Parts: sequence; C-alpha cells; structure tokens
Amino acid sequence: MTGTLYGVGLGPGDPDLITLKAARLIAAAKVVAYPALPGTDSLARAIAAGLIPEGVAELVIEVPMTQARAPAQAAYDTGAARIAEALDAGHDVVMLCEGDPLFYGSFMYIHARLSPRYDVEVIPGVTSISAASARAGLPLAARNEVTAVIPAPLDDATLRKRMEAADSFTILKLGRHIGRVRALLDDLGLADRARYVERATLAAERILPLAEAPDPAPYFSLILVTKGADPWL
Amino acid sequence: MTGTLYGVGLGPGDPDLITLKAARLIAAAKVVAYPALPGTDSLARAIAAGLIPEGVAELVIEVPMTQARAPAQAAYDTGAARIAEALDAGHDVVMLCEGDPLFYGSFMYIHARLSPRYDVEVIPGVTSISAASARAGLPLAARNEVTAVIPAPLDDATLRKRMEAADSFTILKLGRHIGRVRALLDDLGLADRARYVERATLAAERILPLAEAPDPAPYFSLILVTKGADPWL
Repeated sequence: MTGTLYGVGLGPGDPDLITLKAARLIAAAKVVAYPALPGTDSLARAIAAGLIPEGVAELVIEVPMTQARAPAQAAYDTGAARIAEALDAGHDVVMLCEGDPLFYGSFMYIHARLSPRYDVEVIPGVTSISAASARAGLPLAARNEVTAVIPAPLDDATLRKRMEAADSFTILKLGRHIGRVRALLDDLGLADRARYVERATLAAERILPLAEAPDPAPYFSLILVTKGADPWL
Repeated sequence: MTGTLYGVGLGPGDPDLITLKAARLIAAAKVVAYPALPGTDSLARAIAAGLIPEGVAELVIEVPMTQARAPAQAAYDTGAARIAEALDAGHDVVMLCEGDPLFYGSFMYIHARLSPRYDVEVIPGVTSISAASARAGLPLAARNEVTAVIPAPLDDATLRKRMEAADSFTILKLGRHIGRVRALLDDLGLADRARYVERATLAAERILPLAEAPDPAPYFSLILVTKGADPWL
C-alpha cells in the first residue's frame, strides 16, 4: 500500500488560523515535508511548529530563490522524488504550505509531479489576502464587483491594464517593485485608496497608508486597493 | 463594558475547514448571530452546528434575497441594532459567516454599521474559491499570473473584458446566468479549460466539465478557468 500525500494549507501565519482538518493531519503525521529557501528557516514549519509531533521525519524541500525556472524545477523534481520514496514505503506525507496550497504556492509543483501516480489530497487554507482584508477591516468585493490579484513584478503597462480592469485588487510580491507600483497608483488616482499590509496576523504585523510603506517592501507584504466609495452602508 | 463583535469565517462548508480560532470562539460563545434567507435554514449555522454550545442566545439576521438595495440595507440596519443591543449589555457576539467574512459576504454590512462604535474583530476563513481549487486539483495562479473573481450577473460586454484581463479567473453567482457565461467562454475558446464546481467540500459536491453543468446552476457553484497550458511542471 502506498501512502497518501496531503498538501496542507496553514493560513497566513498565525497558527490559530490553521483549520481543524490541517491541525489534525499535522498532529497525526509520521512524515512532514516543507519548502525552505536554502540556508533559512522554513516559515511553513514555523507556523505549524506547535502541532508537529516529536520524532516525526522531516523532508526539507530546498527551493532556490530565483526567477529562472530551471533551478527551481530541478529542486521540485528532487523534492517530489524524496516524497515519492516515503509514499512508496507506505507512509502518508503531510506537506506544510503557507497560506493556501494552490494559490501562488510551491505545492502546485509537487502536486503536478505526484498526483498522476499517487493519492493526493489538498486541504485549502486561509490566504494572505483574506488575512490582510480582515486585519485592515477592508472588504475587497461586494455584490457584482470584480476583484483581481496582481503580482508586482509585471511590467508597468500590464500592471496598469490589470489595475484598470477590476473594482478592487491586491498587489502581491512587492519587494523592490513597490516604487513602480506606487507611481502607477498615483497616476491612476488610487494612491489614497491603497492600504499597505505587512505580515498580516503575525506579531510583526503593520498596516500603513501607502505613502508610509517601506521601499523595498518585505516579502510578506501586499497592497489592497478598493476603487469605489464604501458601498456597503 | 461593552462586548466585542467577532466576525468569524467558517470556510466553504465542511466544518473541518473551520479555523482553530473560529472554533474556539464559537465554542465559548454566549451569543451567536447569523444571516438567513427568510423562511430557510442558515447555511452558516449549519456549518457551525457541531460547535455551538447549548443554551446560547441566537440572533437570526433575516436578509431578503433581492437585487434591490433598500430592503437588504433595512435588514442589515435591523440586524446591526439587535447585535448592538447585545454588545451594549456587555455580551460578546460571534457572528457566523460562510466562507470569509469580508469576501462577498453579508458581514461587511454589519461591520460597516458597528465598527465605528464597537470593538470588531474579523477572523478570516477559507473561501469557496480556495476550496474549489483544492477539490479540483487546479492551481489558480503561479509566479506572475493575474487571477480575477468575476460575478456572473455582470453584462456580457463587461464579463468578456474581465475574462480577457486575467490569466485565470473564477466566475461566481452563476444561477440563471450560466448559459450566458458558457456562451462567452465558448466564444473566447476557453470552454474546454473551464471546470464547474458545485458545493465544494460538502457531501453533495460535484465537479464537472462545463458542458455537463446544470442550467440554472445552484447558488453554491462556480466555474474555474485557467488559460495557459499547465505551467507548473
């Protein structure tokens, strides 16, 4: 009997936002896997730390921080092969995933490699977007509004078009792109409606007007923009 | 001392996808509130049922099913006033919300009315979109892809523009609009890439190719569309 791979969403960072199902799977795990940048601690492991049983086997999937596809894909090949070994030996594997496993996460690369051959179950999690919206008290979409998720590394022309094509949007992956994003929002007359949220639900959380956001922005930050006047009163 | 209002996301339907924090707040509640269509059972209450303590006070906020704003707004005025009474009496109130409280939910209307005067904490939840993506094994966005959420009642021209302006998208609120949506997806050459998901994570869940989706579609259904070839291998 081969094991089952569980891709478990851990939510945005506060361990209290892990789902009951994810918590139970982690607490019963014999083998956990998680991504980490080489030489750094894994945020996924840190979120789940209080639930991981002692003596569990841990598979660290080292993912290089690179825009180039080939090195990352090779890392996922290696990671998937190590998970497959555990599954072949009859062990279930619980892969720990920040946020939601299939939403800008590394789990999709493992999923694509292993779901054709193994039982894989994905346990959805709370996204950083829901967390930021909750912490800022800012509803992203009501009634028939369109909301979009836009990664900041896109070029200016594409960013602008995508911003124009939604009633509200979230900008992810800000990093050193936050200056360009700020200039575009200024130009579109949306800077005053933008809220910067850093590390939502973690102890170091900060929620700031866009003008006060740091440049470069840390990895776990995003900008929420709603265009209309508050429509929910 | 006035009480605190907690807007608690319950996730997409499977009670196991409630977060640890939401479960603890519900289990400790003295007063719960939840929306319901007049004359029907509340789905929010049903999701949380196993966690609600005996003897708890229940405030049902009846929300008429209408596109017109005035009757719904009057219902939220009434609901907010009843919650405010409990808060003024010093009780915390746990409002049960399907999915994520501030994502196309009715909680935002209560939040807008009460957050200026009371302590309000929003506990984010797993959205129906994350749940559908997980159950269909379909990642919505990787790397620098843009994903959008598009309500089906929009007119054809707007629907088409919003579909064109994203790498992937989710269509919500299908109902009697599913035929129009299907025609548009056909026209855009995207029908074969569309997945219909009904009641994700509930016992009655169905995942179907778009061609086999029912017309009209039930309220708890959506369509996931990814445009590219699977980019994650």
